[in-house]
Amino acid sequence: MSISPLNPKGTRDFLPLELSKRNYIINILRRNFKNFGFSEIETPALEKSSTLLDKYGSEGDKLVFKILNSGDKVKKADILSLQSGDLNSFVRSVSEKGLKYDLTVPLARFVSQHQNEIIFPFKRFQIQNVWRADRPQHGRFQEFTQCDADVIGSNSIIQEIELIKMYDSIFNQLGFKDLVLKINHRGILKGLACHFGADKNIMKFISALDKIDKIGVDKVLEEIKLISSNFSEKQLKNILSEKEFDLTYLKKIFIKNSDSILAIDEIDQILNFFSSNNLVNDLKFDLRLARGLNYYTGTIIEVSSKTNTRIGSIGGGGRYDDLTSKFNLNNMSGVGISFGLDRIYLLLEESNLFPEYLDKSFEFMVANFGIDNLKFISPYIDEIRNKNREVLIYPDNVKLNKQFNYADKHNVSTVIIFGDNERKNGIVLLKNMLTGEQLNYQLNEFIEAVIKR
Amino acid sequence: MSISPLNPKGTRDFLPLELSKRNYIINILRRNFKNFGFSEIETPALEKSSTLLDKYGSEGDKLVFKILNSGDKVKKADILSLQSGDLNSFVRSVSEKGLKYDLTVPLARFVSQHQNEIIFPFKRFQIQNVWRADRPQHGRFQEFTQCDADVIGSNSIIQEIELIKMYDSIFNQLGFKDLVLKINHRGILKGLACHFGADKNIMKFISALDKIDKIGVDKVLEEIKLISSNFSEKQLKNILSEKEFDLTYLKKIFIKNSDSILAIDEIDQILNFFSSNNLVNDLKFDLRLARGLNYYTGTIIEVSSKTNTRIGSIGGGGRYDDLTSKFNLNNMSGVGISFGLDRIYLLLEESNLFPEYLDKSFEFMVANFGIDNLKFISPYIDEIRNKNREVLIYPDNVKLNKQFNYADKHNVSTVIIFGDNERKNGIVLLKNMLTGEQLNYQLNEFIEAVIKR
Repeated sequence: MSISPLNPKGTRDFLPLELSKRNYIINILRRNFKNFGFSEIETPALEKSSTLLDKYGSEGDKLVFKILNSGDKVKKADILSLQSGDLNSFVRSVSEKGLKYDLTVPLARFVSQHQNEIIFPFKRFQIQNVWRADRPQHGRFQEFTQCDADVIGSNSIIQEIELIKMYDSIFNQLGFKDLVLKINHRGILKGLACHFGADKNIMKFISALDKIDKIGVDKVLEEIKLISSNFSEKQLKNILSEKEFDLTYLKKIFIKNSDSILAIDEIDQILNFFSSNNLVNDLKFDLRLARGLNYYTGTIIEVSSKTNTRIGSIGGGGRYDDLTSKFNLNNMSGVGISFGLDRIYLLLEESNLFPEYLDKSFEFMVANFGIDNLKFISPYIDEIRNKNREVLIYPDNVKLNKQFNYADKHNVSTVIIFGDNERKNGIVLLKNMLTGEQLNYQLNEFIEAVIKR
Repeated sequence: MSISPLNPKGTRDFLPLELSKRNYIINILRRNFKNFGFSEIETPALEKSSTLLDKYGSEGDKLVFKILNSGDKVKKADILSLQSGDLNSFVRSVSEKGLKYDLTVPLARFVSQHQNEIIFPFKRFQIQNVWRADRPQHGRFQEFTQCDADVIGSNSIIQEIELIKMYDSIFNQLGFKDLVLKINHRGILKGLACHFGADKNIMKFISALDKIDKIGVDKVLEEIKLISSNFSEKQLKNILSEKEFDLTYLKKIFIKNSDSILAIDEIDQILNFFSSNNLVNDLKFDLRLARGLNYYTGTIIEVSSKTNTRIGSIGGGGRYDDLTSKFNLNNMSGVGISFGLDRIYLLLEESNLFPEYLDKSFEFMVANFGIDNLKFISPYIDEIRNKNREVLIYPDNVKLNKQFNYADKHNVSTVIIFGDNERKNGIVLLKNMLTGEQLNYQLNEFIEAVIKR
């Protein structure tokens, strides 16, 4: 029986062109991560359910892909739970493992498990797939790649500064010059919440702020009013509407809140560091930046395009103080950033910033004039390949037009022609596929000519 | 509550050193795949059950990791099947997807699904993880990386020749000079089977041969005797015991079997091609090479060390004629090879062939003498990093000994020292961590000195 073959909804096949563009981004990320002293690690796709569950809230738990226990173990399925509608218990009875949902919880597990093999501060990066059982929809996938760089075990502000530099370096190398790197500090947001009497609703205060871009300042103010005992619409609206947010003013209203004063000092140090070390992209303190995740405790950061706002943030991160404590390891301050690979891809595509050479499947093609001619020229091909240049040998001795057509479809720049005539005369013909120009070279000269192309 | 954190049995965390060694291998593979004109693709970890099942035999089906359906869908669990012991039906009722078991079946699905977007012959490579619910044991993992290169849609012998060249090029670049690349042909094995009257038991004949290394020639002969109607122990033993297997002799006994004569011709063409194109490692026709997988139909190949035989084959492959027909695409001859990443790793480790630089977490460390000094020297650090050299800035302004200790643990070669004194004098101190030697450089000269290290 034959099957109509399709990849599952929410997943993607990557064909060569798309993958080479993705890998172009990933290579620039990896190269910069290394240049900034980060080391790469990998964790498995499979994690124990006990590692994954109860970390992302009950909605998150539902989105963790569960692996069915193998073999006879499924016999232990808890039918009573199923019948009584207790799906969680039923799932637990047939599944002990799941697919990782992000790179952060596995990192916390990793750091705790390997704490004696790691040298702290531990600067690690990780580029791996994660899985979420979200309803598949446009631009949202069940399997996607996360790219994270974190430093665990250092509360030095140097880490924030280095991460900002790295963001700028990576995005600059990708060709982006019109981005804005917004920073803020959870300590400042907490200070604001306290100032307006929302001490007991700090996370709600932050969540409300996080929605400014979606629902506008006025609706956010309405939400905050409901959870604040000392609300002043005018003052908060002023603070949030400032074009250039005023740290001096905030310092004044936080005068009695030492944590928030420290937070302002940290932002000050960062801004001051970059006052003379110019970045290619803009760095801006933005009091409206909140970031949704609730584990952040210090600086937060987000990157987006100033001109292409539809795509949203292409990177974000921040400092967190307590990530590994769920895995028995306390007092490990961490700070990290992540890169939104799919959105960066989109933005590069829409900005026409992918280099042209990525369109080539390979650089050169050797036309096929039979195995004897190929055998003769083979050592020369070896030499070209040893110089890390890409050469495909056309598989069959068929009409040249068909072979050129194959080269054309792969955007090959040059076809290497070596038939009976060329062999007799000790020459090689190089055909430029763009111009159609054909040039003769002596056998001992053509490699140099090829390499130069 | 705190959790004792561990990765699941049968899976692995990769710490920086091990991962950098793995990636060293993968980079050489990827570079060569590209140089030989292969294009990279990726398929998702998740595949539909209909794609995965019924492809690997009933034992294989058991080893496919099944994903539990999400949310309310598990309510459709077929309790009756479970109670009656029909586990397969029960599993089907709660699972529609699985994790890919190898790269070959997803490739067949991919080629069939995207046949109109692909240009044939399609040369693709793929380096991705696969999952098998094997019992975890030493050296066998539930999650591991496969590295495959295949050509789909060409029956030219040039493909076999190119794959052999690529094997040799890759293993040579990894430092292996003592390998043997054994080739054989399923058509020859079929010819043998027919010659001894095992026409109806060809796969059993091949499976028996495949066990020579494990159980010895004599036991293999006993097995073959049972399935052969025209058995001659003496003749078969002679054929299999030849030091140099004799193609001319085989041609004689296959005289009436045109398929097997063609098979011998193919092996002849391959050997003839390499008679003057010398490989670094040995290429040998080996009549005892059988390879277990039953989808091979033509040339087969296997690579192993001549000296370190305990590790077994580190690569293998062959030609197959009918891989995509299960997905509605017929007449697509394919040929491919794979690389055993874990075994190559082991062999490199045991042969002491990993380059030393892999031990370094990063090349240079900047000692921390406070944020002001770092701010001053920051543009110089940018310049070093822009030349793709790895620099870590020590996060805290603490005692130098502690900082040097951190550098030592990461095998850093040079620490860059720039404190108040150096700043006053416009110099930079470079400390060689191996010799302890410290040298002064003018600010405008030290980058060149660093780059040269």
